[in-house]
Amino acid sequence: MKYVITIGREYGSGGRFIGRMVAEKLGIDFYDNELIYEACKDSGISPKVFETFDEKTDGFFSAAGMYSYDMSLSQKVFLAQFEAIKKIASEKSCVIVGRCADYVLRDMENVCNIFICAPMEEKIKRAVEFYGVKIEKASSVITKRDKKRKTYYNFYTDMDWGKASNYDLCINSKLGVENCVNVIVTYVKERFKIE
Amino acid sequence: MKYVITIGREYGSGGRFIGRMVAEKLGIDFYDNELIYEACKDSGISPKVFETFDEKTDGFFSAAGMYSYDMSLSQKVFLAQFEAIKKIASEKSCVIVGRCADYVLRDMENVCNIFICAPMEEKIKRAVEFYGVKIEKASSVITKRDKKRKTYYNFYTDMDWGKASNYDLCINSKLGVENCVNVIVTYVKERFKIE
Repeated sequence: MKYVITIGREYGSGGRFIGRMVAEKLGIDFYDNELIYEACKDSGISPKVFETFDEKTDGFFSAAGMYSYDMSLSQKVFLAQFEAIKKIASEKSCVIVGRCADYVLRDMENVCNIFICAPMEEKIKRAVEFYGVKIEKASSVITKRDKKRKTYYNFYTDMDWGKASNYDLCINSKLGVENCVNVIVTYVKERFKIE
Repeated sequence: MKYVITIGREYGSGGRFIGRMVAEKLGIDFYDNELIYEACKDSGISPKVFETFDEKTDGFFSAAGMYSYDMSLSQKVFLAQFEAIKKIASEKSCVIVGRCADYVLRDMENVCNIFICAPMEEKIKRAVEFYGVKIEKASSVITKRDKKRKTYYNFYTDMDWGKASNYDLCINSKLGVENCVNVIVTYVKERFKIE
């Protein structure tokens, strides 16, 4: 049976890493930002434009007015990702991290939407260790990144980033990465009746 | 090892029932509103006052000013429950549903905070079937009850009801009650290293 797991996550929560391990454990493909960029290469948008305009929002564009003729570059980048995510999800079982994939796939069957959060002190540790953020700036960097994700998500969707009722499962990674993977895999197996 | 599971839940999500089944499966005690009332019987507050002032808030009282000398009856009811929950949780492993138990026990070790939500159409079904709500009023009753829970929670705590990052695990009961129980039990066993 084909199914898709989307993962939204706080910056520094380990959500991307957890997503990759879940995909490995279930034997399905994994897509993060880089791989979604790659899948957009037929869109005609240059990688430079992607880098510059990704996760940007503007005041004249929202889910309601998605197919406006006068699109900004940030809108074009969003739409290219939107189409790439739909194409990937229609072809095979996979885990997709970020990029409002839960919203993009809201009308597709067999989609399970997961959100990963973590306590600030653990996000700080991870930001310093894995992303090279300076410890004295870590709390502010994390707050800004999460604010940007929330703004991007709430702007392009009609939902509220990080609100439990938007998702099928939310898990705090203070449980430990491997334990989170086990709980998510248990959830997915119960949900999609996989042995 | 002693541990406590708190459960917050949307009205009609099946959270209370799920909590009871989790407790049964783990072989620990279960406390819902009625049993917390019962535990408050030494407080000197009459059952009538409990019924009338429970889940009420007033503008002059919050977590910050908890021990004011001039307490309203709703405050007294909240504090009696607060003390009862702390006493129960200090004595034995248990599941406690509702009443800001996550906030009350925030400084206690080995507490796992869970939130249960559900899609509106499933909450309506449950409200009609189990609580005798008329179907034409169900959506409005559910919205009001959840608003009341959110107001009560946000008033007495410094947290945000239903926001994923407040909890250790949030689960949408559209998965099915028994499957939710299995996922929660898996979570609790991973968390507290129970066989």
